[in-house]
Amino acid sequence: MKDINKEKVVDGAKKLTALRGAMEKIADQVTEKGFENLLFTSAGGSLAALSPFCEMVKHMSTIPTFTEIPAELMVTGNPMITDKTVAVLTSKSGDTKETVAVAGWLKEKGVTVVSMCGEADSPLSKVSDYSVNYADAEPHDLLGIYFVGKLLQNHGDFEDYNVFADQLENLPEILVKTAEESVGVAEEYVSYFDPEDKEYQIWTASGNTWGHTYSMAMCVLEECQWLRTKSVHSAEFFHGTLEMVERNVLVCVGMGEGPTRPLDERVIRFAEGHTNQLVVFDTKTLSIPGIDEKYRWLLSPVLLWEMFARTYHHLADVRKHDMDIRRYYRRLNY
Amino acid sequence: MKDINKEKVVDGAKKLTALRGAMEKIADQVTEKGFENLLFTSAGGSLAALSPFCEMVKHMSTIPTFTEIPAELMVTGNPMITDKTVAVLTSKSGDTKETVAVAGWLKEKGVTVVSMCGEADSPLSKVSDYSVNYADAEPHDLLGIYFVGKLLQNHGDFEDYNVFADQLENLPEILVKTAEESVGVAEEYVSYFDPEDKEYQIWTASGNTWGHTYSMAMCVLEECQWLRTKSVHSAEFFHGTLEMVERNVLVCVGMGEGPTRPLDERVIRFAEGHTNQLVVFDTKTLSIPGIDEKYRWLLSPVLLWEMFARTYHHLADVRKHDMDIRRYYRRLNY
Repeated sequence: MKDINKEKVVDGAKKLTALRGAMEKIADQVTEKGFENLLFTSAGGSLAALSPFCEMVKHMSTIPTFTEIPAELMVTGNPMITDKTVAVLTSKSGDTKETVAVAGWLKEKGVTVVSMCGEADSPLSKVSDYSVNYADAEPHDLLGIYFVGKLLQNHGDFEDYNVFADQLENLPEILVKTAEESVGVAEEYVSYFDPEDKEYQIWTASGNTWGHTYSMAMCVLEECQWLRTKSVHSAEFFHGTLEMVERNVLVCVGMGEGPTRPLDERVIRFAEGHTNQLVVFDTKTLSIPGIDEKYRWLLSPVLLWEMFARTYHHLADVRKHDMDIRRYYRRLNY
Repeated sequence: MKDINKEKVVDGAKKLTALRGAMEKIADQVTEKGFENLLFTSAGGSLAALSPFCEMVKHMSTIPTFTEIPAELMVTGNPMITDKTVAVLTSKSGDTKETVAVAGWLKEKGVTVVSMCGEADSPLSKVSDYSVNYADAEPHDLLGIYFVGKLLQNHGDFEDYNVFADQLENLPEILVKTAEESVGVAEEYVSYFDPEDKEYQIWTASGNTWGHTYSMAMCVLEECQWLRTKSVHSAEFFHGTLEMVERNVLVCVGMGEGPTRPLDERVIRFAEGHTNQLVVFDTKTLSIPGIDEKYRWLLSPVLLWEMFARTYHHLADVRKHDMDIRRYYRRLNY
């Protein structure tokens, strides 16, 4: 397995923690203006990456919150969306067609639009009321943590947010440590691959790690590795997909430390008895230096993605299938 | 292909239309008591079957509405759930573990629980404030149409509901006609199967047909036929899964006549150019006698499922894989 580029990891983490003030300021402005509910919307992997925040708000707060798929929202509508709604969107390129379109659609309804983009002056950032550019720094989920954390603090739902946010200064060390500690599970996963085979695999998760796990299956394994996946919520797994598990069927679990952990444990107990290929990506195995026990679950999605990233880069190397090759995505008009 | 059992179809439809009054009465009682939002929750295929009603309310009404997976809801919580919430649940057996548990959990929060069960005096019906037993009559989705339709009428969002509900008296004829008109697509789908192969297939849909399509993939093809499926929302398809499409990859679209139809059409346009195996289950191809054009989309989920049922029974015959065989589901403790 390739060594990690520590310098790049540390640099990205520092750039993100430096944006704490910018995100908190937006949270304060939004709070001051007043709002009634919180929408997370974006296309594909970006919505998946925002979904943990919806779980966080649901679990910690009394603020009504929900997610929507942009293309569907624009034709179906949602009566909860009013001029008292705050919408959070993200797009790395800042020009994802449906995400830009829904931002405009929301603006027309008087919604306050907050976005996080990887490009300055992108179409998405231009249409937003508030936008922060994270350039190429990862994991940019951190910006959402600052924004939502501060919003919940302002709402009286996360009193000690400052303590947690201060601890996030340890992010550079946490990320390096996580990358090192992910080698074992990455190698275990890759060991199940026959490089010639387009293997079928089942991915499950729940709560605030469901989004990233869904994204690992769709935006990485399907889009970038052309591997056949089924992603299914850990609770839903028991209502059909379980019948697909048998010897030599790869089952992967993306497990965090939030309240839904028992749902994933149930999948693990079942899979242990019915396949020889079970891989559990569990953030509990990470040391996560400098973060109090009670905040760990809030970092589960971010750190799970780091485990995934270590894994898929290794997989791409072993399979000699470059992560950047696409047949269709953003190469054709559709 | 086997002939349909017309007598059974007509008998089931008549039993369901006879329950119109019971469902409308519950809607009236719930309206009179007053409520602020509407939750649809149940496990697996039952939640999938309820999800079209959430789409219906979002599109037609100003009532806030949302869905939740029971096992996740009970550990994560949702601040929108209060004693002013009406929850709708369904379970054929009436004893689905998570569904019964969440009904009790909701009752503790003062939520008004409405359920539809296929068994009288089931655990779910007993814990509900209002429950209707549909016995073995199908498609029992009709009960939800009566309940939600009347609720929206009471709320001022569906003035001509009575006209639509009166037209539903044509259900026996509609179902027989739909079964007859589904033979072509059922045979087309089955023609792509090599009986020896556990083929991989992609299923997409959106809006009010997404739930049933997701369910066709998980609760039928996975659970009852042990076939490998990926179900993906039509909008999400373009953010990863599209890369999986190539010659000899089966792509199926569950298409209705609601506002999200253009999302499915986009998948079709793409798939036509990249696979020789595209099957479109389109309710627009059905005659649906006695139903006005403007109401057809409300029946899309129900009639799509009839098309699916015709298809999977035929598939099971051809593959000689009995629909009732399970390895694990409800056979093991897990």
